[in-house]
Amino acid sequence: MYPQPAIKRPKTGREVKTEFLEFFPGIHRIEYKPDTPFSSENGLFYRYYNASERIHGRTMEDWLRPAIFLGKAFTPNLYSCIKPWNDNSQTLDNYKKGIRAMFELCIKLGVKYWAGYDGDLVPESENFDENQNNLEIIINFVQEYQQKTGIKPLWFGADLKNNSRYVNGAFTNSEASIVTYAGYQVKQALQIANKLGSECFMLSPFQENYGSLLNTDLTKEIKHFAKFIKTIYDQKEKIGYNGQMLMQTVPDEGETTGITQYCRDFFSCTSFLKQFNLDKYFKMNVKPGHEFHMAKLYGLLGSVDVKEKDLLDIKSGIYLLRTVVENGGMAPGGLTFYLPSHNAPFDPKDLIEGYISAIDNYAKSLRIAVKLVNDAQLNKSIQMRYLSFSSGWGARIDNSDISLDDCEEQIKKQEIHSFPQPISSHYEHCLMVVTRYTDTTLKFMYFLGIFLRSKREIRGLRKR
Amino acid sequence: MYPQPAIKRPKTGREVKTEFLEFFPGIHRIEYKPDTPFSSENGLFYRYYNASERIHGRTMEDWLRPAIFLGKAFTPNLYSCIKPWNDNSQTLDNYKKGIRAMFELCIKLGVKYWAGYDGDLVPESENFDENQNNLEIIINFVQEYQQKTGIKPLWFGADLKNNSRYVNGAFTNSEASIVTYAGYQVKQALQIANKLGSECFMLSPFQENYGSLLNTDLTKEIKHFAKFIKTIYDQKEKIGYNGQMLMQTVPDEGETTGITQYCRDFFSCTSFLKQFNLDKYFKMNVKPGHEFHMAKLYGLLGSVDVKEKDLLDIKSGIYLLRTVVENGGMAPGGLTFYLPSHNAPFDPKDLIEGYISAIDNYAKSLRIAVKLVNDAQLNKSIQMRYLSFSSGWGARIDNSDISLDDCEEQIKKQEIHSFPQPISSHYEHCLMVVTRYTDTTLKFMYFLGIFLRSKREIRGLRKR
Amino acid sequence: MYPQPAIKRPKTGREVKTEFLEFFPGIHRIEYKPDTPFSSENGLFYRYYNASERIHGRTMEDWLRPAIFLGKAFTPNLYSCIKPWNDNSQTLDNYKKGIRAMFELCIKLGVKYWAGYDGDLVPESENFDENQNNLEIIINFVQEYQQKTGIKPLWFGADLKNNSRYVNGAFTNSEASIVTYAGYQVKQALQIANKLGSECFMLSPFQENYGSLLNTDLTKEIKHFAKFIKTIYDQKEKIGYNGQMLMQTVPDEGETTGITQYCRDFFSCTSFLKQFNLDKYFKMNVKPGHEFHMAKLYGLLGSVDVKEKDLLDIKSGIYLLRTVVENGGMAPGGLTFYLPSHNAPFDPKDLIEGYISAIDNYAKSLRIAVKLVNDAQLNKSIQMRYLSFSSGWGARIDNSDISLDDCEEQIKKQEIHSFPQPISSHYEHCLMVVTRYTDTTLKFMYFLGIFLRSKREIRGLRKR
Amino acid sequence: MYPQPAIKRPKTGREVKTEFLEFFPGIHRIEYKPDTPFSSENGLFYRYYNASERIHGRTMEDWLRPAIFLGKAFTPNLYSCIKPWNDNSQTLDNYKKGIRAMFELCIKLGVKYWAGYDGDLVPESENFDENQNNLEIIINFVQEYQQKTGIKPLWFGADLKNNSRYVNGAFTNSEASIVTYAGYQVKQALQIANKLGSECFMLSPFQENYGSLLNTDLTKEIKHFAKFIKTIYDQKEKIGYNGQMLMQTVPDEGETTGITQYCRDFFSCTSFLKQFNLDKYFKMNVKPGHEFHMAKLYGLLGSVDVKEKDLLDIKSGIYLLRTVVENGGMAPGGLTFYLPSHNAPFDPKDLIEGYISAIDNYAKSLRIAVKLVNDAQLNKSIQMRYLSFSSGWGARIDNSDISLDDCEEQIKKQEIHSFPQPISSHYEHCLMVVTRYTDTTLKFMYFLGIFLRSKREIRGLRKR
Repeated sequence: MYPQPAIKRPKTGREVKTEFLEFFPGIHRIEYKPDTPFSSENGLFYRYYNASERIHGRTMEDWLRPAIFLGKAFTPNLYSCIKPWNDNSQTLDNYKKGIRAMFELCIKLGVKYWAGYDGDLVPESENFDENQNNLEIIINFVQEYQQKTGIKPLWFGADLKNNSRYVNGAFTNSEASIVTYAGYQVKQALQIANKLGSECFMLSPFQENYGSLLNTDLTKEIKHFAKFIKTIYDQKEKIGYNGQMLMQTVPDEGETTGITQYCRDFFSCTSFLKQFNLDKYFKMNVKPGHEFHMAKLYGLLGSVDVKEKDLLDIKSGIYLLRTVVENGGMAPGGLTFYLPSHNAPFDPKDLIEGYISAIDNYAKSLRIAVKLVNDAQLNKSIQMRYLSFSSGWGARIDNSDISLDDCEEQIKKQEIHSFPQPISSHYEHCLMVVTRYTDTTLKFMYFLGIFLRSKREIRGLRKR
Repeated sequence: MYPQPAIKRPKTGREVKTEFLEFFPGIHRIEYKPDTPFSSENGLFYRYYNASERIHGRTMEDWLRPAIFLGKAFTPNLYSCIKPWNDNSQTLDNYKKGIRAMFELCIKLGVKYWAGYDGDLVPESENFDENQNNLEIIINFVQEYQQKTGIKPLWFGADLKNNSRYVNGAFTNSEASIVTYAGYQVKQALQIANKLGSECFMLSPFQENYGSLLNTDLTKEIKHFAKFIKTIYDQKEKIGYNGQMLMQTVPDEGETTGITQYCRDFFSCTSFLKQFNLDKYFKMNVKPGHEFHMAKLYGLLGSVDVKEKDLLDIKSGIYLLRTVVENGGMAPGGLTFYLPSHNAPFDPKDLIEGYISAIDNYAKSLRIAVKLVNDAQLNKSIQMRYLSFSSGWGARIDNSDISLDDCEEQIKKQEIHSFPQPISSHYEHCLMVVTRYTDTTLKFMYFLGIFLRSKREIRGLRKR
Repeated sequence: MYPQPAIKRPKTGREVKTEFLEFFPGIHRIEYKPDTPFSSENGLFYRYYNASERIHGRTMEDWLRPAIFLGKAFTPNLYSCIKPWNDNSQTLDNYKKGIRAMFELCIKLGVKYWAGYDGDLVPESENFDENQNNLEIIINFVQEYQQKTGIKPLWFGADLKNNSRYVNGAFTNSEASIVTYAGYQVKQALQIANKLGSECFMLSPFQENYGSLLNTDLTKEIKHFAKFIKTIYDQKEKIGYNGQMLMQTVPDEGETTGITQYCRDFFSCTSFLKQFNLDKYFKMNVKPGHEFHMAKLYGLLGSVDVKEKDLLDIKSGIYLLRTVVENGGMAPGGLTFYLPSHNAPFDPKDLIEGYISAIDNYAKSLRIAVKLVNDAQLNKSIQMRYLSFSSGWGARIDNSDISLDDCEEQIKKQEIHSFPQPISSHYEHCLMVVTRYTDTTLKFMYFLGIFLRSKREIRGLRKR
Repeated sequence: MYPQPAIKRPKTGREVKTEFLEFFPGIHRIEYKPDTPFSSENGLFYRYYNASERIHGRTMEDWLRPAIFLGKAFTPNLYSCIKPWNDNSQTLDNYKKGIRAMFELCIKLGVKYWAGYDGDLVPESENFDENQNNLEIIINFVQEYQQKTGIKPLWFGADLKNNSRYVNGAFTNSEASIVTYAGYQVKQALQIANKLGSECFMLSPFQENYGSLLNTDLTKEIKHFAKFIKTIYDQKEKIGYNGQMLMQTVPDEGETTGITQYCRDFFSCTSFLKQFNLDKYFKMNVKPGHEFHMAKLYGLLGSVDVKEKDLLDIKSGIYLLRTVVENGGMAPGGLTFYLPSHNAPFDPKDLIEGYISAIDNYAKSLRIAVKLVNDAQLNKSIQMRYLSFSSGWGARIDNSDISLDDCEEQIKKQEIHSFPQPISSHYEHCLMVVTRYTDTTLKFMYFLGIFLRSKREIRGLRKR
């Protein structure tokens, strides 16, 4: 794991500056209020997320490293409803407003990372030079806001997905000119990532695909892709950018009928990278769940996308953060939160509430995960489960060279030859433990404390 | 809705009789202990389910009406692991042991309903008369246990699913002899349901299917099915059985490749019943979620199956029970809990813990659902959302005959012709409300009570 | 079924007018050339579709009634690649070019129906009155082209799907103003359908949905929808439009996370219509497959959408057309072909080839379907399969009132009580029959004919 | 690729011996009759499969290497219907009958490979030594039949899937005794494979899974699995068995709720093998489709399973065999055909027809695939598609080291900086080519031949 960089706390706080009162008026910095009783009216507080609270040796914000995704909610999009910061026109000014809104949201949520692609920053002009110019203006604009706020990118990447030029492939396109342009775009994006101090650089293989086997030279295409992966890494080294390279995995995103992607889930991405000996250059950006755990096991854990049902799923949050805690953190990666694209009409307050719910869900997960990590009984029962490997023949399986002949010998050694009996994995018990820990009011201890203090006081008073 | 029958409380309690200490030894009646702190070792108590506690005018057990499904976990099954009550042999004695284990489980969980099919009661003998005989023996055996315990069926049904004779259809089979046998089997099952006092009678259309259009007379098959639906209802009336007829819906159960079922989800079942004017005879047995809500809306809500991910899903539980509470209950139906079939090895304690988790999940859901129902602010905001229909033109849409010409007139009436503006549905807010209500420690009030009492005591003592 | 209207043959032919040489230059009217050997270079001919060929008593075009869908491929769409007829600008002129391209395609394919929504005709202007004006201009433009070509709509509908104002519902919106506007839009669309002589009128319930149960009054929303269904039918009658009302079913279209549609597949649509006694006003627009066959069985078959994998799926085509042939056609509905939206770059020739492949697939299916219908052996074997219902007790099941007691009596009648034995459905045989019929060279007979004629000639010559 | 072993042709033919007339009476050796007109009554012939016909330099049987899977259709299974060779009793005799039936089927289909697991050969006795004894008896029985018929295994494997002892893992079980037993079972299976002369040895990772992260030591489990993979390979070398090791991939088999498999599709299997440097020991057993093509590309193509919808899917067959032909075959692997498990009642003839349809589908695919391989125009158009990589800068991408700075230089070189334009992949054309090749009557040439000969004869006669 990378050493975790020291991060200056964002200049936030109750006294939000005027310039950050533009798009979410009347909404203050979201505070941690664990004891506020809830009614369906009030919700603009964190119940679990207390950024600076130390838990298991780190602040909560160091464990979670939450980031707000710039795209979709803030970038002009013709098919979504009009937003206060966005009349959906493809103008530089409209993009600037979206960026301002995102910084305001970060400030108000107390989040110090954003994340996004080059394509989320400027309108695609049909004039090449104008486009270059726009990009430069916007990067300076973002940089200025970053300096004002202390907020910076968790990751930045080249958008090789949404522009129609890449529909038949970026690095796996059949046209050298498009492959070349993709290379040029990544070069620029690496420079931007470096300039903005992005912790990581994201590469998405979403469009590396083929439509028909009949007109596709699979071998040639995939070799091009492998060659550029290495070329990108070399460029990063050359310009002295020391962010972590990430590859985006997209297990659940809808496929267009008839299109097959070369790299899709964690496994197709890693088997590609390993096939071409490229797995040392990249770590994987995954979603919570099995792929996250396999990424950790394979030493390829980069960063995590939290979207859709994962946003409010407490169980995948608990398992994820239990692994993060055991792993000692996941820097330089973190948790990137994606809120729905909001094609439906929405108020700014909806967006804030969505982020509060999501961040709070992972903060709650962290608190429970730490409990699980510290539960001596639980750890003991895991050890007990594998007890048969801790001595004798079992330990030989763990530690020495064994052969199938040795296995036979073990089986035949038994006086009465017999079949081994399987035992319960206590699956229901595991589910109960997680559910009960989740249910156990985290504030229980808080009230218990008050109660006990009262009791003591009572006893004290009575003694008098 | 049916009037809710008076139910004698099952003879349970701490003093469990010796005969109910067979398969779950060392496990007492599961008690409600809301305040017991949790560790990963202890779990054999309800945190939320307090059967006799009145909440919103009824006992919790009246709201939930939980039932244990006999099949799978208790019925001998060659492909599952051996259980204490089941060596998987196809003997009458082995079936009896499974039934005894189920009654013991009901007693210990404090659940007063079981549910099952005729096929779960006896081994399929290849000798017709022996089979009849076995069935009679078992029914008497079950009846005896019912009398001892006060436990009875929430529903009973004819298993037209698992016997290979029905693979190509029960009532939609191409062979008159099989159709006839299905009729005979249902006749017997109705008698059993009547004898055992089952609240409902379940019919599963699972095997009513076709494999190939090329050799199938769809019209003939579906007419046979419709005819038998009516015939079954007539038989029920004839024998004076007054249980509710239910049709099983099976939206998610795996389909064999190439097989198409006539009736599958709530909608295919109801459109079939409505097509043949049979929807007055049946109510639907559904799963939590959209189909449950549509069943209620269409006046076809019968009973609910809780299985797989629904067992521990708090959100679908909350929405389901909110509707049940608003509906004034769901008798004569209830919640049937299905635990995994346990092909994997397991201990009896696993099974108990699985049921505790599931029942507790729905008990917690009930407590939250009642809060939502009583949340004046929430109810007001729903009303506000539809405010435009409460007066003027909007009220005409609600209450009178209108024409599209009236719509045009309304649009043209505006001085400046314009498009209506959509407004936010506050989806994020709704998600937050449910999450926050779930998080809000249900015992908060409990501790607050203790705390306030302590405070009062303190004040009282101080005053002295 | 509606009486099939007499249709004037479109003015097509080899002498395509200059005005129809705009967007597909160098491509002539696609001809039927069953015997042209194929190489990967040449493909611009029909191998099976011979519009005017009589088969089983009708022309092929009368059986298929193919229509080209206007949307997607012809309508400007910001996220798709630029097309010869479309620079993706939202101008009236750009929409006109797309419409011209569609008419040119129809002419060249020899197809006499188009199909589409009001939203595919004009750009959405933010100025209400301008929008009205644009619509009028375009309708006249379309009408002019219809007169020139003899091509007209198979169906026309109100697009209540793509405009963001309807994202939270059209007739089930919480705002009376949006519900009213939807009513007004449908009124206009009905007028247009009438003016353009559309065979059918399409209503899509795609956006009739809810996001959260917490803020939704399901009962109110669904009652509004039911009321408007009736209101729309009344309007149609009032203006004397005699097209068939269709409801669109959308079983497979992706759902946005968290959104639940009231009406989705054939069964949810029909159970809604039947619940409110509206099923007499509408027929269903379905996809090939089970839902199509159930629509036919329930008397609700309206029209068929052919898209995605159905475009080239010979098996679903065969089963579909076998039913159409047995049904005596499906007028006033037909087959609407949807080609992929072509976000990827494409040439006009690609589009032509896509349509040729799809139409030819259904033409081939028709030829095979007719063979199946006429296969005496096959028909006999279906009859044989249900033989047990043709006499005795089986016939009583078919034709008389029976009771479950009668079933018991039948079972007990057998001297030795026994279980009925299931018999094979010969599923593999059915698959083989369809495969073999598909494989059997349709031109076999053709060459056999030539061959036999040659033989005769040879014999004749020899005899000389 | 392995050198393809010389295979003695099975002793089959019209004069089938009496001992092979047991279970499929009245059915002769299936012959190749390409010109027999088809009616729904007759189907017991191959239209495309002509085992000994040389095509593109090899016999058809050398290209396809078809194998019949022993399990499911022939192995006693309590939940399937009774078959002529199987009363579903768990006796050695019943297993023998199934094996005899399989050999009879191979003989009649003219197929010279079978495939199966040790678990398909003997009933699981609860007595360990009896089980060993049974296995020995059966192996001798199989060997005898192999010698009589010349039929042998394409692959043989250890069934670590169906026995309930492995439900929580075979090599990844938490119990050393079960891991050890799995090792012993594989040792035995390797000996059997060697004795029976199996071309390959199959290992299925199906049960290598975990239920809950809470009680699982992922790292330990996966390390055990990796260690045994190597150990198995060592054992194979030790006993001098030179079959190819295969790993089974199971992308689509249903998952039990809550169970996560370590190795599932091609990509999760290969990334596991590569992670532990084990990919040199194994090749992959895949299904037709994308994973097959990636296996070939990664040099990991072992063998192919044909089941369910792939059995009759002509398109995946064509693409698969095009790659096989270009690859020069796929020995020592081949095509294993799995027919449905037939829980439904069926006749022996159904089974024969199922296999004829499936083998014929792949024979037809082979004939079309060879045409595609030989289509000069098609090959040229693929080359043309990548033309931009054949010279200049494009060739440098293909052949030299390049940097992103070089890409920039290329872009900036253009006098007017501009975006590259994407071009069509002609997806519709590709689909049309495959469809048209499939449609093109394979017998066309045959009849054309007859026809032309007739014509010549006519001309000849006329000239006289």
